[in-house]
Amino acid sequence: MKPLLRALSAATSIVKRSFSLSLSRHVVGSGHSQEQAPVWGSRKSKAKRKLQIHNLLAMGDPEIEVQLAPLRADVKEQGDLVRRLKQEKAPEIDVQRAVAELKHKKKKLEDKELALAPKDDFDRSKMEDLLKQRFFYDQSFAIYGGVNGLYDFGPMGCAMKANLLQAWRNFFILEEQMLEVDTAMLTPEQVLKASGHVERFQDYMVKDLKTGECFRADHLIEATFEKMLADKKAKSDKKDEIRKILPLIDGMSKDDMGETLKKYNMKSPVTNNDISEPIEFNLMFATSIGPTGQLKGFLRPETAQGIFVNFKRLLEFNQGKLPFAGAQIGNAFRNEISPRSGLIRVREFTMAEIEHFCDPEKKDHPKFSSVADLELTLYSGCNQMEGKAPEKWKLGEAVKQNLIANETLGYFMGRIYMFMTRVGVDPKRLRFRQHLSNEMAHYACDCWDAECKTSYGWIECVGCADRSCYDLSQHSKATNVKLVAERKLPEPVTVDVVECLPQKSVLGKAFKQDAKAVTEHLAKLEANVVTQLEQAFNDKGETEIAIDGKNFTIKKEMIQVKRQQKTMHVEEYVPSVIEPSFGVGRIMYAIFEHNFKVREGDEQRTYLSLPPVIAPYKCSVLPLSQNAEFVPFVKQLSADLTRCDVSHKVDDSSGSIGRRYARTDQIAIPYGITIDFDSLNTPHSATLRERETLKQIRVPVDELPALVRDLAQGRTTWDEALEKYPLFVQQEASK
Amino acid sequence: MKPLLRALSAATSIVKRSFSLSLSRHVVGSGHSQEQAPVWGSRKSKAKRKLQIHNLLAMGDPEIEVQLAPLRADVKEQGDLVRRLKQEKAPEIDVQRAVAELKHKKKKLEDKELALAPKDDFDRSKMEDLLKQRFFYDQSFAIYGGVNGLYDFGPMGCAMKANLLQAWRNFFILEEQMLEVDTAMLTPEQVLKASGHVERFQDYMVKDLKTGECFRADHLIEATFEKMLADKKAKSDKKDEIRKILPLIDGMSKDDMGETLKKYNMKSPVTNNDISEPIEFNLMFATSIGPTGQLKGFLRPETAQGIFVNFKRLLEFNQGKLPFAGAQIGNAFRNEISPRSGLIRVREFTMAEIEHFCDPEKKDHPKFSSVADLELTLYSGCNQMEGKAPEKWKLGEAVKQNLIANETLGYFMGRIYMFMTRVGVDPKRLRFRQHLSNEMAHYACDCWDAECKTSYGWIECVGCADRSCYDLSQHSKATNVKLVAERKLPEPVTVDVVECLPQKSVLGKAFKQDAKAVTEHLAKLEANVVTQLEQAFNDKGETEIAIDGKNFTIKKEMIQVKRQQKTMHVEEYVPSVIEPSFGVGRIMYAIFEHNFKVREGDEQRTYLSLPPVIAPYKCSVLPLSQNAEFVPFVKQLSADLTRCDVSHKVDDSSGSIGRRYARTDQIAIPYGITIDFDSLNTPHSATLRERETLKQIRVPVDELPALVRDLAQGRTTWDEALEKYPLFVQQEASK
Repeated sequence: MKPLLRALSAATSIVKRSFSLSLSRHVVGSGHSQEQAPVWGSRKSKAKRKLQIHNLLAMGDPEIEVQLAPLRADVKEQGDLVRRLKQEKAPEIDVQRAVAELKHKKKKLEDKELALAPKDDFDRSKMEDLLKQRFFYDQSFAIYGGVNGLYDFGPMGCAMKANLLQAWRNFFILEEQMLEVDTAMLTPEQVLKASGHVERFQDYMVKDLKTGECFRADHLIEATFEKMLADKKAKSDKKDEIRKILPLIDGMSKDDMGETLKKYNMKSPVTNNDISEPIEFNLMFATSIGPTGQLKGFLRPETAQGIFVNFKRLLEFNQGKLPFAGAQIGNAFRNEISPRSGLIRVREFTMAEIEHFCDPEKKDHPKFSSVADLELTLYSGCNQMEGKAPEKWKLGEAVKQNLIANETLGYFMGRIYMFMTRVGVDPKRLRFRQHLSNEMAHYACDCWDAECKTSYGWIECVGCADRSCYDLSQHSKATNVKLVAERKLPEPVTVDVVECLPQKSVLGKAFKQDAKAVTEHLAKLEANVVTQLEQAFNDKGETEIAIDGKNFTIKKEMIQVKRQQKTMHVEEYVPSVIEPSFGVGRIMYAIFEHNFKVREGDEQRTYLSLPPVIAPYKCSVLPLSQNAEFVPFVKQLSADLTRCDVSHKVDDSSGSIGRRYARTDQIAIPYGITIDFDSLNTPHSATLRERETLKQIRVPVDELPALVRDLAQGRTTWDEALEKYPLFVQQEASK
Repeated sequence: MKPLLRALSAATSIVKRSFSLSLSRHVVGSGHSQEQAPVWGSRKSKAKRKLQIHNLLAMGDPEIEVQLAPLRADVKEQGDLVRRLKQEKAPEIDVQRAVAELKHKKKKLEDKELALAPKDDFDRSKMEDLLKQRFFYDQSFAIYGGVNGLYDFGPMGCAMKANLLQAWRNFFILEEQMLEVDTAMLTPEQVLKASGHVERFQDYMVKDLKTGECFRADHLIEATFEKMLADKKAKSDKKDEIRKILPLIDGMSKDDMGETLKKYNMKSPVTNNDISEPIEFNLMFATSIGPTGQLKGFLRPETAQGIFVNFKRLLEFNQGKLPFAGAQIGNAFRNEISPRSGLIRVREFTMAEIEHFCDPEKKDHPKFSSVADLELTLYSGCNQMEGKAPEKWKLGEAVKQNLIANETLGYFMGRIYMFMTRVGVDPKRLRFRQHLSNEMAHYACDCWDAECKTSYGWIECVGCADRSCYDLSQHSKATNVKLVAERKLPEPVTVDVVECLPQKSVLGKAFKQDAKAVTEHLAKLEANVVTQLEQAFNDKGETEIAIDGKNFTIKKEMIQVKRQQKTMHVEEYVPSVIEPSFGVGRIMYAIFEHNFKVREGDEQRTYLSLPPVIAPYKCSVLPLSQNAEFVPFVKQLSADLTRCDVSHKVDDSSGSIGRRYARTDQIAIPYGITIDFDSLNTPHSATLRERETLKQIRVPVDELPALVRDLAQGRTTWDEALEKYPLFVQQEASK
């Protein structure tokens, strides 16, 4: 019994946050099924689809609801049980078992919801073909056979990523005047011990005893059980037994897993060889810093720690004032046991993290009103416990009702929503899911994950947590460095201060080379210890103290005690941290899925409808044919576009113009300029085509660079351009 | 004798390029002394200084030249000896000894030059104080005691770095339409075996046998010798002996070093304990990828390999056309034995690398004419051999005279020069030093380092090498994947083609599970091997082949040989690579030194004159006082600046305006807006101050955001602004 308890309480601690971005185990079912019609490739009228979605969000599809009802009831029943057990202060182990089962039932409900959701015609392999073929990204070191969980971004993916990060920097760092840092990835062990990663950032694995291949223990148990349940020959009492254990896998300790593996005689799923006992496997990449091998280090598993260890410097930089936010964009590393799901679960990834430091007593936010009216889909812990679907909430209302813990957390959720939709995430496939109290780190007050719906299910793309003062406290404890801010007291306070003044010359004579350590130790003594010392001097004239395992006899004349009253105008406190943490690769993947489209009437013409702000190139320049007269126009335009900082691609290859347009659509180029025979006449003009509407206008050549720049930067709209310039009516296909 | 030879030839191989950016051992003396007066803090008239510098460049300071003459002669003599030995085809060992001594003499000359150069009043510790205090950068994990060779960039350093990288991206990637990639840092061992890093990317170290502390063996030998030479008690014949060995340290093998350490009974410089034999120490950080521990990996020591392994995909992306350039910005890691010199020699650093792939027979460049007239300071191998100073050359002339190997290399040198000076490197402290034939990798044709003069001496900031086809060939050899491009033949060529067609059914029956391997092997046989096979069949009806150590008997009926003639229109070739490789941290450091200034007449008022393009903030917004009426103006301006994407800092703290200006100068803010009492009157206006001239103008508030944006982006100049708006004459000090 005990081991299970231990495992379950470990699961509710520090590690959870570390799991939050890339180790989440809830990358599964859907909580609702509002996606009647997919956005991509749908041929239904927009108005009709909108109506349907609205209805579904409000009440769910009635037919589907009938089938889901029993599962919803199941979840609710279990949720109620958990609550009752907690109220009754039932033994911890019973509560935890009930929680593990609740999670399992939630998963079943979500799986069913996803399964019943109307099938869309999204074809993942088709999208992956496009992304590979146009080198958005692909497996790393492929010519060497490839390495799982490592991906290289090609020119298109790299440009898109750079644009995404630039948009992030503008939206968060510049607009909110955050303090960006760029800190070391190599991290000494001590730092990650303090943060809890050395001890608890791990999974359990088993090894194939012959081949050495490794598997995640929980995955193996689950897969084996499911295979057994599907086996028609298996006895029904055996199956019942398995069904009872299945919900508990998530909370199993190492010993539980070991017993289960042994009891059911589980083997390697690949070779059927015997397997090892479960082994703890820390997910950090270890290395040695420096030549001696004595300084153990890891590649950072998140960028956040780099901000925490710089807190003092940042506070000073901010002239001692709170609140302020530190931010960092950078790579982090997790040595996944068996990475899969493409860009979603990888070993090396880019994060963008914000640590907003504030007074724990003042979590209101001056700009909250700017997001209060935003309507977000919230999947609260309560709704999850009761088997209900997510609901739409205005942020202002959600904070007022205490659904979201405080304004600052709500403000960042609003900003996350704005950012995500701006860079191309479909708002209808974006929800915020609250962590249940049992998945939240023990120190966190509230935590919401921004999840995007993809063909892999709902995946967590951004975490947004109120982490209270945990991180700074941990590093402060480990280093003996105060990581605090000061707040002004409403009224000055008079306090008694006891200071211990070491008498250096006496100490020096007595302790020689140890004198420095003793002096420092004495100077830092707390008031109550000083009083104890004085007591000891009165009793015996001296006392022993231990420093780093060595004893020293301290005599009365070695210190002088100074007592005084001080008037304090400020008090120190450890700031709270609100942490929005973005998984850049996951967001990119969601954007790909949400923007992969097929041209109506032509299955083969796939394209990406990325918003201009993150499109790899803003514009293409195409001569209508290989006629030599077009060349100087193309060159001039390209030079002018460069001068306007408009990234663009010249395609002067021999394909038909329609084919070349299709090719530029595939790499998400939003605007296309074509130099045609009319361009040769004065006043020189060219056509400008927009990717989504396929409409074209005719624009004077010298106005084009600025127009495309303004369109790409959102300073003007395509509709405004349509009004200003004449429509060009020749059809693409006819060229 | 032999070991020395080996070490010396190793020194001329692959490793040298890897040393090029961060392991260079020539971070030492100066080749000339044109810096009569420093740019910073000098109180001489500009015109006078310019004249002096010009003269010095042309002919050197006569007084100094007198003192340098014997050293120059020494270098020349030694250079002549090297050349003669080479001509006479003297034993390799003699050549290498002469070369090692030449390098030593060059170093002595450069040290002397630097020592004799007029002292400037640059104070490194003063600059470092500023950089630390305003958190440009600082040591990583300082609250944990810090880790050598790791640095964190704070808000100012981070913004400057981001701006520098954006400028690089615009200048190189966008302007030249390069193909940017973003590839994995974790790299499997195989890849770095092929590149040569596993075998040869190493230094020798010795360990203190008691404490385990490590030292670079060459550094230790050199330091010990220098101490012995300085010892007045030492015998003169002993000193003579040492003087003879000193020049040879650079080329010592492991055994040479071991013998030297033993012979002179060298000890740990810190504890005087005994030390170990020299140990090879690979400078890459090792780790394991995945849970089994079977896939050994390293953190990449450079970003270049990520481009090479993606060559095929990039070529396809470029529709098979050459030339094209791949580029990557990213971090790399080197486990220095004892890092020092601040940002210059670190364990984790950002690089920006370009690999320009081209036809080895066509190294001209279409845009070369755009840089041909640029005048660069070139320190050619020839001048180095002869003890001469660097010289000014027009790039066009240097390529014409074959001083620079080809146009493409020359083009990139020109672009590097333009970029470096644009981002704030002082052109007078920038030179291009050619690698001597003995420091160049054996496969490279030509290599020039852009070096910046700093208080550490001339440091290499950018390498620019013609690497021929080495890298692609190595990866091709290791993977059996063809990494080639095609060129059109001037005339179609008819060739005999011999194809070996494996007979699958026969092979399948004969070899069962091995059939696939045998089939693949046979299908890939070269024409001459096929002919040998046929010969064997004629002789004996069968023959043996070995595949992966296993023997197979191949019979006549297992293959069919097809001979035909083919008309070839193209031929395959392995492209050449020209590689400009930028060390971002080093460039930043050089920029800091070249832009650290002191206000005339006020020693304490230090500041940074960074060009606006890389300044962390473009503008400050300062209310004249804490008067409440200023607040709405400040808020509005800040919002408008954000909308124009102008990064800025509001400083509404209580210091005097002059003090706040000084503070913004320290973080290199080029423009400052002050809201004063006149701003409250209509038409609302504010003052705009420029950091270098300290002049101020009065500008309508609503015109300010666009004006500052245009100034920061270089679309307008301060002189133009001075003409357009009235000068504001109130003095800073008086406020």
